[in-house]
Amino acid sequence: MATLSDLGEIALIERIKKSISTDSSVVKGSGDDCAVLKLDAKRYTLATSDLLVEGTDFTHKDDAYLVGRKAIAVSLSDIAACAGIPRYCLVSLGVPAATKVAFAARLLKGMRDIAKIYRLNIVGGDLSRARQLVIDVSIFGVVEKKNLVLRSGARCGDIIFVSGALGGSISGKHLKFTPRLKEARFLAQNFKLNSMIDISDGLAQDLNHLLRESGVGAVIYEELIPLDKAAAGLCDALYSGEDFELLFTMPLEEARRLIRKKMKPFRPIGEIRDKSCGLRLIDRNNREKILKPGGFRHF
Amino acid sequence: MATLSDLGEIALIERIKKSISTDSSVVKGSGDDCAVLKLDAKRYTLATSDLLVEGTDFTHKDDAYLVGRKAIAVSLSDIAACAGIPRYCLVSLGVPAATKVAFAARLLKGMRDIAKIYRLNIVGGDLSRARQLVIDVSIFGVVEKKNLVLRSGARCGDIIFVSGALGGSISGKHLKFTPRLKEARFLAQNFKLNSMIDISDGLAQDLNHLLRESGVGAVIYEELIPLDKAAAGLCDALYSGEDFELLFTMPLEEARRLIRKKMKPFRPIGEIRDKSCGLRLIDRNNREKILKPGGFRHF
Repeated sequence: MATLSDLGEIALIERIKKSISTDSSVVKGSGDDCAVLKLDAKRYTLATSDLLVEGTDFTHKDDAYLVGRKAIAVSLSDIAACAGIPRYCLVSLGVPAATKVAFAARLLKGMRDIAKIYRLNIVGGDLSRARQLVIDVSIFGVVEKKNLVLRSGARCGDIIFVSGALGGSISGKHLKFTPRLKEARFLAQNFKLNSMIDISDGLAQDLNHLLRESGVGAVIYEELIPLDKAAAGLCDALYSGEDFELLFTMPLEEARRLIRKKMKPFRPIGEIRDKSCGLRLIDRNNREKILKPGGFRHF
Repeated sequence: MATLSDLGEIALIERIKKSISTDSSVVKGSGDDCAVLKLDAKRYTLATSDLLVEGTDFTHKDDAYLVGRKAIAVSLSDIAACAGIPRYCLVSLGVPAATKVAFAARLLKGMRDIAKIYRLNIVGGDLSRARQLVIDVSIFGVVEKKNLVLRSGARCGDIIFVSGALGGSISGKHLKFTPRLKEARFLAQNFKLNSMIDISDGLAQDLNHLLRESGVGAVIYEELIPLDKAAAGLCDALYSGEDFELLFTMPLEEARRLIRKKMKPFRPIGEIRDKSCGLRLIDRNNREKILKPGGFRHF
Protein backbone atom coordinates (compact mmCIF):
# COMPACT_ATOMS: atom_id res chain seq x y z
CA MET A 1 0.00 0.00 0.00
CA ALA A 2 1.19 3.49 -0.81
CA THR A 3 2.65 5.59 2.02
CA LEU A 4 2.83 9.35 2.36
CA SER A 5 6.50 9.15 1.34
CA ASP A 6 5.39 7.75 -2.01
CA LEU A 7 2.58 10.23 -2.50
CA GLY A 8 4.43 13.35 -1.39
CA GLU A 9 3.35 16.37 0.55
CA ILE A 10 2.04 18.47 -2.31
CA ALA A 11 -0.10 15.67 -3.72
CA LEU A 12 -1.58 15.06 -0.27
CA ILE A 13 -2.38 18.73 0.21
CA GLU A 14 -3.97 18.85 -3.26
CA ARG A 15 -6.10 15.87 -2.33
CA ILE A 16 -7.21 17.49 0.93
CA LYS A 17 -8.03 20.79 -0.75
CA LYS A 18 -10.18 19.17 -3.38
CA SER A 19 -12.25 17.28 -0.85
CA ILE A 20 -13.14 20.20 1.38
CA SER A 21 -16.12 22.48 0.85
CA THR A 22 -16.66 25.78 2.62
CA ASP A 23 -19.47 28.33 2.88
CA SER A 24 -19.64 31.75 1.24
CA SER A 25 -17.96 33.52 4.17
CA VAL A 26 -14.67 31.88 3.14
CA VAL A 27 -13.08 34.21 0.58
CA LYS A 28 -9.99 32.02 0.28
CA GLY A 29 -9.49 28.63 1.96
CA SER A 30 -6.29 26.64 1.77
CA GLY A 31 -3.99 27.49 -1.15
CA ASP A 32 -2.64 30.82 0.05
CA ASP A 33 -0.45 31.89 2.94
CA CYS A 34 -3.53 32.58 5.04
CA ALA A 35 -7.19 31.69 4.92
CA VAL A 36 -9.20 34.84 4.15
CA LEU A 37 -12.58 35.15 5.88
CA LYS A 38 -15.30 37.79 5.72
CA LEU A 39 -15.24 40.02 8.80
CA ASP A 40 -17.10 43.29 8.16
CA ALA A 41 -17.70 45.83 5.39
CA LYS A 42 -14.08 46.94 5.29
CA ARG A 43 -11.99 44.08 6.62
CA TYR A 44 -11.17 40.40 6.31
CA THR A 45 -9.98 38.02 9.01
CA LEU A 46 -6.74 36.15 8.18
CA ALA A 47 -5.95 32.76 9.72
CA THR A 48 -2.87 30.58 9.45
CA SER A 49 -1.19 27.76 11.34
CA ASP A 50 2.31 26.32 11.24
CA LEU A 51 3.58 23.14 12.81
CA LEU A 52 7.24 22.93 13.83
CA VAL A 53 8.68 19.50 14.59
CA GLU A 54 11.97 18.74 16.34
CA GLY A 55 14.40 17.15 13.91
CA THR A 56 12.76 18.81 10.89
CA ASP A 57 12.34 22.48 11.71
CA PHE A 58 14.84 22.69 14.56
CA THR A 59 17.06 20.36 16.58
CA HIS A 60 17.32 19.84 20.33
CA LYS A 61 20.71 21.56 20.15
CA ASP A 62 19.18 24.84 18.98
CA ASP A 63 18.66 27.59 21.53
CA ALA A 64 15.15 27.07 22.94
CA TYR A 65 14.62 30.83 22.91
CA LEU A 66 15.16 30.96 19.14
CA VAL A 67 12.98 27.88 18.59
CA GLY A 68 10.09 29.55 20.44
CA ARG A 69 10.69 32.76 18.54
CA LYS A 70 10.71 30.92 15.21
CA ALA A 71 7.47 29.06 15.98
CA ILE A 72 5.66 32.40 16.17
CA ALA A 73 7.68 34.16 13.45
CA VAL A 74 6.78 31.59 10.78
CA SER A 75 3.07 32.30 11.15
CA LEU A 76 3.70 36.05 11.39
CA SER A 77 5.42 35.75 8.02
CA ASP A 78 2.22 34.24 6.57
CA ILE A 79 0.21 37.19 7.87
CA ALA A 80 2.81 39.50 6.30
CA ALA A 81 2.46 37.73 2.95
CA CYS A 82 -1.21 38.79 2.89
CA ALA A 83 -0.29 42.33 4.04
CA GLY A 84 -2.22 41.83 7.28
CA ILE A 85 -1.93 42.82 10.94
CA PRO A 86 -1.49 39.93 13.41
CA ARG A 87 -3.84 39.96 16.41
CA TYR A 88 -4.28 36.66 18.26
CA CYS A 89 -2.31 33.48 18.70
CA LEU A 90 -2.94 29.96 20.01
CA VAL A 91 0.06 27.79 20.89
CA SER A 92 -0.13 23.99 21.14
CA LEU A 93 2.89 22.22 22.59
CA GLY A 94 3.65 18.51 22.49
CA VAL A 95 6.53 18.03 24.92
CA PRO A 96 8.65 15.03 25.98
CA ALA A 97 8.24 14.37 29.72
CA ALA A 98 12.01 14.62 30.24
CA THR A 99 12.09 18.19 28.91
CA LYS A 100 13.86 20.48 31.35
CA VAL A 101 11.73 23.19 32.91
CA ALA A 102 14.51 25.68 32.07
CA PHE A 103 14.25 24.70 28.38
CA ALA A 104 10.47 25.15 28.38
CA ALA A 105 10.83 28.51 30.11
CA ARG A 106 13.29 29.76 27.47
CA LEU A 107 11.04 28.48 24.68
CA LEU A 108 8.13 30.42 26.12
CA LYS A 109 10.24 33.53 26.62
CA GLY A 110 11.20 33.42 22.94
CA MET A 111 7.50 33.28 22.04
CA ARG A 112 6.50 36.01 24.45
CA ASP A 113 9.21 38.42 23.34
CA ILE A 114 8.40 38.25 19.63
CA ALA A 115 4.66 38.39 20.37
CA LYS A 116 5.22 41.62 22.28
CA ILE A 117 7.18 43.24 19.43
CA TYR A 118 4.34 42.63 16.97
CA ARG A 119 1.50 43.29 19.47
CA LEU A 120 0.32 39.72 19.10
CA ASN A 121 -1.92 38.45 21.92
CA ILE A 122 -1.16 34.86 22.99
CA VAL A 123 -4.65 33.88 24.14
CA GLY A 124 -4.57 30.13 24.65
CA GLY A 125 -3.42 26.77 23.46
CA ASP A 126 -2.90 23.23 24.60
CA LEU A 127 -0.21 21.14 26.22
CA SER A 128 0.34 17.43 25.79
CA ARG A 129 3.05 14.84 26.21
CA ALA A 130 4.81 13.74 23.00
CA ARG A 131 7.90 11.75 22.03
CA GLN A 132 9.47 14.68 20.22
CA LEU A 133 8.91 18.37 20.72
CA VAL A 134 6.16 19.70 18.42
CA ILE A 135 4.90 23.28 18.37
CA ASP A 136 1.82 24.31 16.47
CA VAL A 137 1.04 28.01 16.29
CA SER A 138 -2.21 29.43 14.91
CA ILE A 139 -2.35 33.14 14.32
CA PHE A 140 -5.25 35.20 13.23
CA GLY A 141 -5.24 38.77 12.18
CA VAL A 142 -7.03 41.33 10.07
CA VAL A 143 -6.47 43.09 6.78
CA GLU A 144 -8.39 45.92 5.14
CA LYS A 145 -10.08 44.64 1.98
CA LYS A 146 -8.20 47.21 -0.08
CA ASN A 147 -4.82 46.03 1.24
CA LEU A 148 -5.24 42.26 0.88
CA VAL A 149 -2.67 40.66 -1.41
CA LEU A 150 -2.90 37.03 -2.54
CA ARG A 151 -0.67 34.67 -4.49
CA SER A 152 -3.12 34.60 -7.33
CA GLY A 153 -3.06 38.14 -8.71
CA ALA A 154 0.18 38.25 -10.73
CA ARG A 155 -0.27 39.64 -14.28
CA CYS A 156 1.85 39.46 -17.43
CA GLY A 157 4.34 42.31 -17.38
CA ASP A 158 4.48 42.60 -13.57
CA ILE A 159 7.92 43.10 -12.12
CA ILE A 160 8.95 40.49 -9.53
CA PHE A 161 10.63 41.68 -6.31
CA VAL A 162 12.10 40.13 -3.18
CA SER A 163 12.35 41.91 0.15
CA GLY A 164 15.90 40.88 1.01
CA ALA A 165 18.89 38.60 0.48
CA LEU A 166 18.25 34.90 -0.06
CA GLY A 167 20.08 31.67 0.76
CA GLY A 168 21.15 32.43 4.33
CA SER A 169 18.70 30.06 5.96
CA ILE A 170 21.05 27.09 6.42
CA SER A 171 23.57 29.18 8.32
CA GLY A 172 20.99 29.95 10.98
CA LYS A 173 18.85 32.71 9.52
CA HIS A 174 15.84 30.33 9.67
CA LEU A 175 15.95 30.75 13.49
CA LYS A 176 16.51 34.49 13.52
CA PHE A 177 14.67 35.98 10.57
CA THR A 178 12.51 39.07 10.87
CA PRO A 179 8.95 38.51 9.65
CA ARG A 180 8.39 41.23 7.03
CA LEU A 181 5.21 42.65 8.52
CA LYS A 182 6.36 46.26 8.43
CA GLU A 183 7.60 45.97 4.84
CA ALA A 184 4.39 44.28 3.69
CA ARG A 185 2.21 46.96 5.24
CA PHE A 186 4.37 49.71 3.74
CA LEU A 187 4.09 48.15 0.30
CA ALA A 188 0.35 47.48 0.45
CA GLN A 189 -0.42 50.98 1.73
CA ASN A 190 1.76 52.80 -0.80
CA PHE A 191 1.80 50.65 -3.95
CA LYS A 192 -0.52 48.57 -6.06
CA LEU A 193 0.69 45.02 -5.39
CA ASN A 194 -0.70 42.31 -7.64
CA SER A 195 0.55 39.25 -5.77
CA MET A 196 2.67 38.22 -2.79
CA ILE A 197 3.95 35.10 -1.00
CA ASP A 198 6.59 34.51 1.66
CA ILE A 199 9.60 32.39 0.75
CA SER A 200 9.38 29.37 3.05
CA ASP A 201 10.14 26.54 0.61
CA GLY A 202 12.81 28.28 -1.51
CA LEU A 203 12.57 30.93 -4.22
CA ALA A 204 12.06 28.43 -7.07
CA GLN A 205 9.26 26.55 -5.34
CA ASP A 206 7.46 29.56 -3.89
CA LEU A 207 7.66 31.48 -7.15
CA ASN A 208 6.18 28.40 -8.77
CA HIS A 209 3.32 28.40 -6.27
CA LEU A 210 2.64 32.03 -7.10
CA LEU A 211 2.79 31.40 -10.87
CA ARG A 212 0.46 28.42 -10.63
CA GLU A 213 -2.11 30.25 -8.51
CA SER A 214 -1.95 33.21 -10.92
CA GLY A 215 -1.91 31.13 -14.10
CA VAL A 216 1.21 32.85 -15.47
CA GLY A 217 4.90 32.24 -16.18
CA ALA A 218 8.04 34.20 -15.31
CA VAL A 219 11.64 34.90 -16.11
CA ILE A 220 14.17 35.78 -13.40
CA TYR A 221 17.78 36.96 -13.75
CA GLU A 222 20.63 35.34 -11.86
CA GLU A 223 22.56 38.59 -11.58
CA LEU A 224 19.59 40.31 -9.95
CA ILE A 225 18.99 37.75 -7.21
CA PRO A 226 20.41 39.17 -3.96
CA LEU A 227 22.51 36.54 -2.19
CA ASP A 228 22.87 36.41 1.55
CA LYS A 229 26.53 36.64 2.52
CA ALA A 230 26.20 33.18 4.10
CA ALA A 231 24.85 31.62 0.87
CA ALA A 232 27.27 29.24 -0.84
CA GLY A 233 25.87 30.16 -4.24
CA LEU A 234 22.79 30.55 -6.40
CA CYS A 235 21.48 27.11 -5.47
CA ASP A 236 21.06 28.10 -1.84
CA ALA A 237 19.02 31.11 -2.91
CA LEU A 238 16.87 29.09 -5.32
CA TYR A 239 16.30 25.91 -3.39
CA SER A 240 16.94 26.27 0.34
CA GLY A 241 13.77 27.01 2.28
CA GLU A 242 13.05 29.33 5.15
CA ASP A 243 14.42 32.66 3.99
CA PHE A 244 11.06 34.15 4.93
CA GLU A 245 11.54 37.13 2.67
CA LEU A 246 8.56 38.44 0.72
CA LEU A 247 8.26 37.67 -2.97
CA PHE A 248 5.84 40.05 -4.70
CA THR A 249 4.84 41.44 -8.06
CA MET A 250 3.56 44.83 -9.23
CA PRO A 251 2.82 46.54 -12.55
CA LEU A 252 5.78 48.17 -14.31
CA GLU A 253 4.79 51.76 -13.48
CA GLU A 254 4.47 50.93 -9.80
CA ALA A 255 7.77 49.06 -9.91
CA ARG A 256 9.49 52.13 -11.34
CA ARG A 257 8.06 54.20 -8.50
CA LEU A 258 9.33 51.68 -5.93
CA ILE A 259 12.79 51.47 -7.52
CA ARG A 260 13.07 55.27 -7.62
CA LYS A 261 12.60 55.28 -3.84
CA LYS A 262 15.92 53.38 -3.57
CA MET A 263 14.75 51.42 -0.54
CA LYS A 264 17.51 48.95 -0.07
CA PRO A 265 15.68 45.73 0.84
CA PHE A 266 13.36 45.66 -2.19
CA ARG A 267 15.11 44.18 -5.22
CA PRO A 268 13.59 43.46 -8.64
CA ILE A 269 14.61 40.00 -9.85
CA GLY A 270 12.51 39.41 -12.95
CA GLU A 271 9.26 39.72 -14.78
CA ILE A 272 5.93 37.90 -15.08
CA ARG A 273 5.36 36.37 -18.53
CA ASP A 274 2.71 34.33 -20.24
CA LYS A 275 1.94 30.90 -18.75
CA SER A 276 3.56 29.14 -21.71
CA CYS A 277 6.92 30.60 -20.67
CA GLY A 278 6.99 28.44 -17.52
CA LEU A 279 9.65 29.54 -15.04
CA ARG A 280 12.96 30.49 -16.67
CA LEU A 281 16.26 31.67 -15.27
CA ILE A 282 18.64 33.81 -17.32
CA ASP A 283 22.16 33.13 -16.06
CA ARG A 284 25.15 35.47 -15.98
CA ASN A 285 26.16 34.29 -19.46
CA ASN A 286 22.75 35.15 -20.80
CA ARG A 287 21.77 31.52 -21.18
CA GLU A 288 18.20 30.57 -20.42
CA LYS A 289 17.21 27.51 -18.41
CA ILE A 290 13.94 26.06 -17.23
CA LEU A 291 13.81 26.11 -13.42
CA LYS A 292 12.45 23.04 -11.70
CA PRO A 293 10.39 23.80 -8.60
CA GLY A 294 12.67 21.83 -6.25
CA GLY A 295 12.61 23.34 -2.77
CA PHE A 296 11.99 21.58 0.48
CA ARG A 297 9.98 18.37 0.59
CA HIS A 298 8.55 17.08 3.86
CA PHE A 299 7.96 13.55 2.59
CA MET B 1 17.48 20.02 36.83
CA ALA B 2 13.72 19.80 37.12
CA THR B 3 11.82 18.26 34.20
CA LEU B 4 8.22 18.80 33.15
CA SER B 5 7.37 15.46 34.78
CA ASP B 6 8.43 16.90 38.12
CA LEU B 7 6.67 20.20 37.63
CA GLY B 8 3.39 18.85 36.26
CA GLU B 9 1.09 20.12 33.56
CA ILE B 10 -1.07 22.38 35.68
CA ALA B 11 1.90 24.11 37.29
CA LEU B 12 3.39 24.71 33.85
CA ILE B 13 0.15 26.16 32.49
CA GLU B 14 -0.14 28.40 35.56
CA ARG B 15 3.38 29.62 34.94
CA ILE B 16 2.61 30.36 31.30
CA LYS B 17 -0.61 32.17 32.11
CA LYS B 18 1.04 34.43 34.65
CA SER B 19 3.76 35.49 32.25
CA ILE B 20 1.54 36.54 29.35
CA SER B 21 0.00 39.96 28.94
CA THR B 22 -2.75 40.80 26.46
CA ASP B 23 -4.47 43.95 25.26
CA SER B 24 -7.97 45.18 26.12
CA SER B 25 -9.60 43.32 23.21
CA VAL B 26 -8.99 40.04 25.05
CA VAL B 27 -12.01 39.52 27.31
CA LYS B 28 -10.72 36.17 28.54
CA GLY B 29 -7.33 34.64 27.69
CA SER B 30 -6.24 31.18 28.78
CA GLY B 31 -8.07 29.75 31.80
CA ASP B 32 -11.38 28.93 30.18
CA ASP B 33 -12.49 26.46 27.51
CA CYS B 34 -12.03 29.14 24.85
CA ALA B 35 -10.32 32.48 24.58
CA VAL B 36 -12.96 35.22 24.35
CA LEU B 37 -12.17 38.18 22.09
CA LYS B 38 -14.07 41.37 21.27
CA LEU B 39 -15.72 41.15 17.84
CA ASP B 40 -18.50 43.73 17.51
CA ALA B 41 -21.24 45.38 19.57
CA LYS B 42 -23.21 42.19 20.04
CA ARG B 43 -20.76 39.31 19.67
CA TYR B 44 -17.49 37.83 20.82
CA THR B 45 -15.06 35.64 18.89
CA LEU B 46 -14.19 32.33 20.58
CA ALA B 47 -10.88 30.55 19.90
CA THR B 48 -9.57 27.21 21.10
CA SER B 49 -6.98 24.63 20.11
CA ASP B 50 -6.46 21.00 21.06
CA LEU B 51 -3.46 18.82 20.39
CA LEU B 52 -3.97 15.07 20.03
CA VAL B 53 -0.93 12.81 20.22
CA GLU B 54 -0.71 9.16 19.21
CA GLY B 55 -0.17 6.99 22.27
CA THR B 56 -1.83 9.51 24.60
CA ASP B 57 -5.13 10.50 22.99
CA PHE B 58 -5.47 7.57 20.60
CA THR B 59 -3.45 4.56 19.46
CA HIS B 60 -2.41 3.45 16.00
CA LYS B 61 -4.91 0.60 16.37
CA ASP B 62 -7.86 2.98 16.57
CA ASP B 63 -9.96 3.54 13.47
CA ALA B 64 -8.39 6.51 11.65
CA TYR B 65 -11.87 7.80 10.83
CA LEU B 66 -12.72 8.08 14.52
CA VAL B 67 -9.35 9.63 15.33
CA GLY B 68 -9.96 12.36 12.76
CA ARG B 69 -13.49 12.84 14.03
CA LYS B 70 -12.25 13.11 17.63
CA ALA B 71 -9.57 15.67 16.74
CA ILE B 72 -12.29 18.07 15.60
CA ALA B 73 -14.91 17.04 18.19
CA VAL B 74 -12.65 17.90 21.15
CA SER B 75 -12.38 21.54 20.06
CA LEU B 76 -16.07 21.67 19.16
CA SER B 77 -16.76 20.63 22.75
CA ASP B 78 -14.77 23.67 23.96
CA ILE B 79 -16.89 25.95 21.79
CA ALA B 80 -20.00 24.24 23.25
CA ALA B 81 -18.75 24.89 26.80
CA CYS B 82 -18.87 28.64 26.04
CA ALA B 83 -22.31 28.26 24.37
CA GLY B 84 -20.85 29.34 21.03
CA ILE B 85 -21.28 28.56 17.35
CA PRO B 86 -18.23 27.02 15.61
CA ARG B 87 -17.19 28.68 12.33
CA TYR B 88 -13.64 28.04 11.12
CA CYS B 89 -11.01 25.40 11.66
CA LEU B 90 -7.27 25.01 11.00
CA VAL B 91 -5.78 21.52 11.07
CA SER B 92 -2.06 20.85 11.56
CA LEU B 93 -0.86 17.31 11.00
CA GLY B 94 2.51 15.83 11.97
CA VAL B 95 2.65 12.49 10.20
CA PRO B 96 5.20 9.63 10.12
CA ALA B 97 6.52 9.13 6.58
CA ALA B 98 5.44 5.46 6.63
CA THR B 99 1.79 6.39 7.19
CA LYS B 100 -0.43 4.68 4.65
CA VAL B 101 -2.26 6.96 2.25
CA ALA B 102 -5.45 5.01 3.01
CA PHE B 103 -5.03 5.78 6.73
CA ALA B 104 -4.55 9.49 6.03
CA ALA B 105 -7.57 9.50 3.74
CA ARG B 106 -9.80 7.94 6.45
CA LEU B 107 -8.47 10.38 9.03
CA LEU B 108 -9.40 13.28 6.78
CA LYS B 109 -12.81 11.82 6.01
CA GLY B 110 -13.52 11.61 9.75
CA MET B 111 -12.64 15.29 10.04
CA ARG B 112 -14.62 16.33 7.01
CA ASP B 113 -17.77 14.47 8.03
CA ILE B 114 -18.01 15.96 11.51
CA ALA B 115 -17.12 19.42 10.17
CA LYS B 116 -20.05 19.16 7.78
CA ILE B 117 -22.52 18.21 10.50
CA TYR B 118 -21.65 21.29 12.54
CA ARG B 119 -21.19 23.64 9.56
CA LEU B 120 -17.55 24.10 10.43
CA ASN B 121 -15.33 25.41 7.62
CA ILE B 122 -11.92 23.73 7.42
CA VAL B 123 -9.96 26.64 5.95
CA GLY B 124 -6.31 25.69 6.24
CA GLY B 125 -3.57 24.11 8.24
CA ASP B 126 -0.12 22.66 7.94
CA LEU B 127 1.51 19.33 7.23
CA SER B 128 4.87 18.10 8.48
CA ARG B 129 6.74 14.88 9.04
CA ALA B 130 6.87 13.64 12.65
CA ARG B 131 7.89 10.48 14.49
CA GLN B 132 4.41 9.92 15.90
CA LEU B 133 1.08 11.14 14.56
CA VAL B 134 0.12 14.50 16.08
CA ILE B 135 -3.01 16.46 15.19
CA ASP B 136 -3.57 20.00 16.33
CA VAL B 137 -6.96 21.56 15.63
CA SER B 138 -7.76 25.23 16.17
CA ILE B 139 -11.38 26.25 15.95
CA PHE B 140 -12.83 29.68 16.14
CA GLY B 141 -16.42 30.62 16.45
CA VAL B 142 -18.76 33.30 17.66
CA VAL B 143 -21.11 33.80 20.59
CA GLU B 144 -23.61 36.54 21.28
CA LYS B 145 -22.48 38.54 24.32
CA LYS B 146 -25.74 37.69 26.10
CA ASN B 147 -25.21 33.95 25.59
CA LEU B 148 -21.56 33.63 26.63
CA VAL B 149 -21.02 31.30 29.60
CA LEU B 150 -17.66 30.98 31.39
CA ARG B 151 -16.26 28.74 34.10
CA SER B 152 -16.05 31.65 36.47
CA GLY B 153 -19.69 32.61 37.09
CA ALA B 154 -20.90 29.93 39.55
CA ARG B 155 -22.68 31.36 42.64
CA CYS B 156 -23.53 29.94 46.05
CA GLY B 157 -26.85 28.14 45.82
CA ASP B 158 -26.53 27.29 42.10
CA ILE B 159 -27.61 23.79 41.13
CA ILE B 160 -24.95 21.76 39.32
CA PHE B 161 -25.98 19.75 36.24
CA VAL B 162 -24.37 17.40 33.76
CA SER B 163 -25.58 16.87 30.21
CA GLY B 164 -25.33 13.07 30.17
CA ALA B 165 -23.97 9.84 31.63
CA LEU B 166 -20.36 9.78 32.80
CA GLY B 167 -17.58 7.18 32.96
CA GLY B 168 -17.96 5.59 29.53
CA SER B 169 -14.87 7.11 28.02
CA ILE B 170 -12.51 4.17 28.55
CA SER B 171 -14.80 1.80 26.70
CA GLY B 172 -14.49 3.90 23.56
CA LYS B 173 -16.84 6.82 24.06
CA HIS B 174 -13.82 9.16 23.91
CA LEU B 175 -13.63 8.40 20.18
CA LYS B 176 -17.35 8.64 19.47
CA PHE B 177 -18.81 11.30 21.73
CA THR B 178 -21.20 13.96 20.47
CA PRO B 179 -19.99 17.49 21.20
CA ARG B 180 -22.86 19.13 23.08
CA LEU B 181 -23.22 22.16 20.84
CA LYS B 182 -26.98 21.84 20.39
CA GLU B 183 -27.58 21.31 24.11
CA ALA B 184 -25.37 24.26 25.05
CA ARG B 185 -27.17 26.60 22.65
CA PHE B 186 -30.55 25.41 23.89
CA LEU B 187 -29.55 26.04 27.50
CA ALA B 188 -27.97 29.46 26.89
CA GLN B 189 -30.92 30.66 24.84
CA ASN B 190 -33.60 29.47 27.26
CA PHE B 191 -32.06 29.61 30.73
CA LYS B 192 -29.85 31.81 32.82
CA LEU B 193 -26.63 29.79 33.09
CA ASN B 194 -24.07 31.00 35.59
CA SER B 195 -21.14 28.78 34.61
CA MET B 196 -20.20 25.94 32.27
CA ILE B 197 -17.22 23.70 31.38
CA ASP B 198 -16.88 20.53 29.34
CA ILE B 199 -15.72 17.38 31.13
CA SER B 200 -12.42 16.52 29.49
CA ASP B 201 -10.28 15.67 32.54
CA GLY B 202 -12.92 13.89 34.66
CA LEU B 203 -15.85 15.23 36.71
CA ALA B 204 -13.80 15.77 39.88
CA GLN B 205 -11.03 17.71 38.14
CA ASP B 206 -13.22 19.77 35.85
CA LEU B 207 -15.65 20.65 38.65
CA ASN B 208 -12.60 21.73 40.61
CA HIS B 209 -11.50 23.97 37.70
CA LEU B 210 -14.94 25.56 37.69
CA LEU B 211 -14.99 26.03 41.48
CA ARG B 212 -11.53 27.59 41.48
CA GLU B 213 -12.32 30.00 38.66
CA SER B 214 -15.58 30.96 40.41
CA GLY B 215 -14.11 31.12 43.93
CA VAL B 216 -16.73 28.77 45.40
CA GLY B 217 -17.15 25.24 46.80
CA ALA B 218 -19.65 22.46 46.05
CA VAL B 219 -21.34 19.34 47.25
CA ILE B 220 -22.34 16.56 44.84
CA TYR B 221 -24.40 13.42 45.51
CA GLU B 222 -23.24 9.96 44.48
CA GLU B 223 -26.77 8.76 43.85
CA LEU B 224 -27.44 11.62 41.45
CA ILE B 225 -24.39 11.12 39.23
CA PRO B 226 -25.60 9.39 36.03
CA LEU B 227 -23.30 6.47 35.19
CA ASP B 228 -22.65 5.35 31.64
CA LYS B 229 -23.61 1.69 31.24
CA ALA B 230 -19.96 0.98 30.39
CA ALA B 231 -18.66 2.60 33.59
CA ALA B 232 -17.24 0.11 36.13
CA GLY B 233 -18.33 2.34 38.99
CA LEU B 234 -18.31 5.80 40.50
CA CYS B 235 -14.53 6.15 40.11
CA ASP B 236 -14.82 6.03 36.32
CA ALA B 237 -17.36 8.82 36.43
CA LEU B 238 -15.30 10.95 38.81
CA TYR B 239 -11.81 10.43 37.51
CA SER B 240 -11.71 9.16 33.94
CA GLY B 241 -11.35 11.95 31.43
CA GLU B 242 -12.94 12.55 28.06
CA ASP B 243 -16.64 12.16 28.70
CA PHE B 244 -17.08 15.53 26.95
CA GLU B 245 -20.41 16.14 28.62
CA LEU B 246 -21.25 19.66 29.77
CA LEU B 247 -21.03 20.51 33.45
CA PHE B 248 -23.00 23.67 34.26
CA THR B 249 -24.63 25.60 37.07
CA MET B 250 -27.74 27.76 37.29
CA PRO B 251 -29.74 29.48 40.05
CA LEU B 252 -32.31 27.35 41.90
CA GLU B 253 -35.35 28.89 40.20
CA GLU B 254 -33.90 28.28 36.76
CA ALA B 255 -32.92 24.75 37.78
CA ARG B 256 -36.51 24.03 38.80
CA ARG B 257 -37.69 25.25 35.44
CA LEU B 258 -35.19 23.01 33.64
CA ILE B 259 -36.07 19.97 35.77
CA ARG B 260 -39.80 20.49 35.14
CA LYS B 261 -39.10 20.19 31.41
CA LYS B 262 -38.06 16.57 32.06
CA MET B 263 -35.39 16.68 29.35
CA LYS B 264 -33.60 13.43 29.83
CA PRO B 265 -29.97 14.32 29.31
CA PHE B 266 -29.80 17.13 31.88
CA ARG B 267 -29.30 15.76 35.38
CA PRO B 268 -28.80 17.75 38.61
CA ILE B 269 -25.90 16.30 40.61
CA GLY B 270 -25.34 18.81 43.42
CA GLU B 271 -25.15 22.37 44.60
CA ILE B 272 -22.64 25.21 44.74
CA ARG B 273 -21.58 26.15 48.27
CA ASP B 274 -19.27 28.60 49.93
CA LYS B 275 -15.57 28.35 49.09
CA SER B 276 -14.75 27.00 52.56
CA CYS B 277 -16.78 23.87 51.76
CA GLY B 278 -14.23 22.74 49.17
CA LEU B 279 -15.54 19.92 46.99
CA ARG B 280 -17.51 17.27 48.88
CA LEU B 281 -19.21 14.08 47.82
CA ILE B 282 -22.17 12.65 49.76
CA ASP B 283 -22.15 8.90 49.21
CA ARG B 284 -25.12 6.52 49.15
CA ASN B 285 -24.81 6.00 52.91
CA ASN B 286 -25.02 9.73 53.47
CA ARG B 287 -21.35 9.97 54.43
CA GLU B 288 -19.47 13.04 53.35
CA LYS B 289 -15.98 12.95 51.87
CA ILE B 290 -13.61 15.55 50.50
CA LEU B 291 -13.02 14.89 46.79
CA LYS B 292 -9.48 15.23 45.52
CA PRO B 293 -9.21 16.73 42.03
CA GLY B 294 -7.53 13.63 40.54
CA GLY B 295 -8.39 13.35 36.88
CA PHE B 296 -6.01 12.91 33.99
CA ARG B 297 -2.43 14.18 34.19
CA HIS B 298 -0.33 14.58 31.07
CA PHE B 299 2.98 14.67 32.96
